Amino acid sequence: MSFAELASQLAQVGRRCHARGWALGTSGNFSAVASRDPLRLAITTCGVDKGALTAAQIVEIDGDGRAMGGAGTPSAEVSLHLAIVRARQAGAVLHTHSIWSTLLSEGSAAGVAIEDYEMLKGLEGVRTHAHREWLPILENTQDWRAAGPRVESLLAAEPAAHGFLIRRHGLYTWGRDLAAAERHVEILEFLFEVVGRKRGS
Amino acid sequence: MSFAELASQLAQVGRRCHARGWALGTSGNFSAVASRDPLRLAITTCGVDKGALTAAQIVEIDGDGRAMGGAGTPSAEVSLHLAIVRARQAGAVLHTHSIWSTLLSEGSAAGVAIEDYEMLKGLEGVRTHAHREWLPILENTQDWRAAGPRVESLLAAEPAAHGFLIRRHGLYTWGRDLAAAERHVEILEFLFEVVGRKRGS
Amino acid sequence: MSFAELASQLAQVGRRCHARGWALGTSGNFSAVASRDPLRLAITTCGVDKGALTAAQIVEIDGDGRAMGGAGTPSAEVSLHLAIVRARQAGAVLHTHSIWSTLLSEGSAAGVAIEDYEMLKGLEGVRTHAHREWLPILENTQDWRAAGPRVESLLAAEPAAHGFLIRRHGLYTWGRDLAAAERHVEILEFLFEVVGRKRGS
Amino acid sequence: MSFAELASQLAQVGRRCHARGWALGTSGNFSAVASRDPLRLAITTCGVDKGALTAAQIVEIDGDGRAMGGAGTPSAEVSLHLAIVRARQAGAVLHTHSIWSTLLSEGSAAGVAIEDYEMLKGLEGVRTHAHREWLPILENTQDWRAAGPRVESLLAAEPAAHGFLIRRHGLYTWGRDLAAAERHVEILEFLFEVVGRKRGS
Repeated sequence: MSFAELASQLAQVGRRCHARGWALGTSGNFSAVASRDPLRLAITTCGVDKGALTAAQIVEIDGDGRAMGGAGTPSAEVSLHLAIVRARQAGAVLHTHSIWSTLLSEGSAAGVAIEDYEMLKGLEGVRTHAHREWLPILENTQDWRAAGPRVESLLAAEPAAHGFLIRRHGLYTWGRDLAAAERHVEILEFLFEVVGRKRGS
Repeated sequence: MSFAELASQLAQVGRRCHARGWALGTSGNFSAVASRDPLRLAITTCGVDKGALTAAQIVEIDGDGRAMGGAGTPSAEVSLHLAIVRARQAGAVLHTHSIWSTLLSEGSAAGVAIEDYEMLKGLEGVRTHAHREWLPILENTQDWRAAGPRVESLLAAEPAAHGFLIRRHGLYTWGRDLAAAERHVEILEFLFEVVGRKRGS
Repeated sequence: MSFAELASQLAQVGRRCHARGWALGTSGNFSAVASRDPLRLAITTCGVDKGALTAAQIVEIDGDGRAMGGAGTPSAEVSLHLAIVRARQAGAVLHTHSIWSTLLSEGSAAGVAIEDYEMLKGLEGVRTHAHREWLPILENTQDWRAAGPRVESLLAAEPAAHGFLIRRHGLYTWGRDLAAAERHVEILEFLFEVVGRKRGS
Repeated sequence: MSFAELASQLAQVGRRCHARGWALGTSGNFSAVASRDPLRLAITTCGVDKGALTAAQIVEIDGDGRAMGGAGTPSAEVSLHLAIVRARQAGAVLHTHSIWSTLLSEGSAAGVAIEDYEMLKGLEGVRTHAHREWLPILENTQDWRAAGPRVESLLAAEPAAHGFLIRRHGLYTWGRDLAAAERHVEILEFLFEVVGRKRGS
């Protein structure tokens, strides 16, 4: 797929997440792998409104997070996208800010366990509801470049996780391509609301 | 109605359920009877995103669940659709995964009772709010072929039920045609949210 | 306005109520005065899906509730519409079934009091938030023709009410024209959710 | 930008707020600065339905709140818009009525504190989640002209606030332009729901 097609699809995914309330305002950032060798990502630029996201607001970056073309600054969380793409062989990485992921990541728990729901089968490789998904929670920071090793060790320590939360911040999830990553957002957001309502929020 | 028209209508129903949050990701499956003798069903294929469901993702199956045409594998829950079509003379069967049906089917209750709501009159044959609808809850499994007899005896034991829940999984409902089945989804999902909020979820 | 225009506008109002979840399935019914002398109402027919409501599903009735033209049976609750049009000089009457109006009309309270909200100013004639709106609750029945006197005395006893609830059933509200009645639905549904959430539902 | 373009954009913002449920019925009012010297605002007229808001329902006012053109009466809360434009050098002021802002402004608290959420970075000038946003709550009134000094001293006393609430009424927020103000609405409404759900509403 060409960069232009990828950028157009990323913009559609972003607008759909905004419509659901998962990327209000300028929140959230979205990327997809444009090439593996050399590594090139299409990624949303910083500070753009997701409700009006267009392909022109997607830039190309290299494996060090440097912009290779397009206008605008790549998202400040570019190091997270690169770490995920490398550790999981992901084709797309989606980061959303929803009410329920924010509520579930309050407090000091190390993660959220979700088990025995049929909906878990929407996660790649999960074949039965008798599955326990553990979504670790990472502490929030404003220096994701420095936090790179922390993200890499979390991804290495939790090889089965389909996503992770950042405390009072939101969800990172991914997939082999953009459709799989968007499906993971839908599945996980559904499960967050179920778990959140069970907790009585 | 031709198979092509039926497939197109099923795709629209699926996208509407997705828009309401009742079939996020690849969850849910939908069928309609294309012919009675011999029995032929139009049914969604496995693993397709309901938000982008198209008529091309609907296949024709026979009374043994074998694909008769179209691309893709029929839903793994095809035996449930066939059992319902036979037991209830249904023209369409809809299976959704919603937040509230998931929450109501938690725990170990044998079913959910809903009574004295005007909205119950949206269910086929119900003429008054002074009605008690009992939706049995079936334990979840990944082997619906083996669970066939369990489903058949549940349908026989509860001849008045307009639907049933599967534990932490979702709703099955049906109707004489696709419009009636979709109306049953809307009515039951409404009532699940009312009952769920009364329980304090 | 011609009957055809009125029917088209009623169909749009119905579809908007369905989109908000206030008239799921076949629930709800909607009318507007086509002429005062002799009295003629445009009103939704019985058992039609509000999500696909069209002008062809609206019939004309006279002051006794008899169909004057169009196909389909007028709503079973036609006597309520006629009583309201007469008692309140209303130009339109809207009846919705929402989650929050259903929850607020549970139990045995004689009505719901809503006061001191700015949003109350959206109700006709209310000039300040320092207003107490009392929405009486009528017991549900399946014989609205026989219940006519009960409805008339309620409307006479509560001359300031902008609407009323039916127990575990829904809301009736009205206005001098269709736009005013639709505004009342939006204002009251908003307030029901506020009051319902305060009660902890 | 011409007045006509500004009016068209304000109408779109209003319809989007209505779609989210933040400006149901005739609630809410919206303005943008058309010129600074002399001061001219484009502002919604009183009593118009936000779901069908059009550019023709936007009027131009001067720095004293007098209509300079267009049909309809400027919003009764025009003095609030002018006070904010002057105190904050805002290019646009948006006032919404949402469920969660209404619930959070119940009781007698002097304001709402929101801290440590990543989403706070959507507010102008906020660079880290380690931020405490204090939204003061103003008592409601029907005489905003007389309340002018009260609004001015609140804005002077809370120079860092990105918005304020009016008791049981709604939110005022603003931005350097209409896009920034709309982003502030989305960010703050998101945070109100998070805080409201944490409180158990």
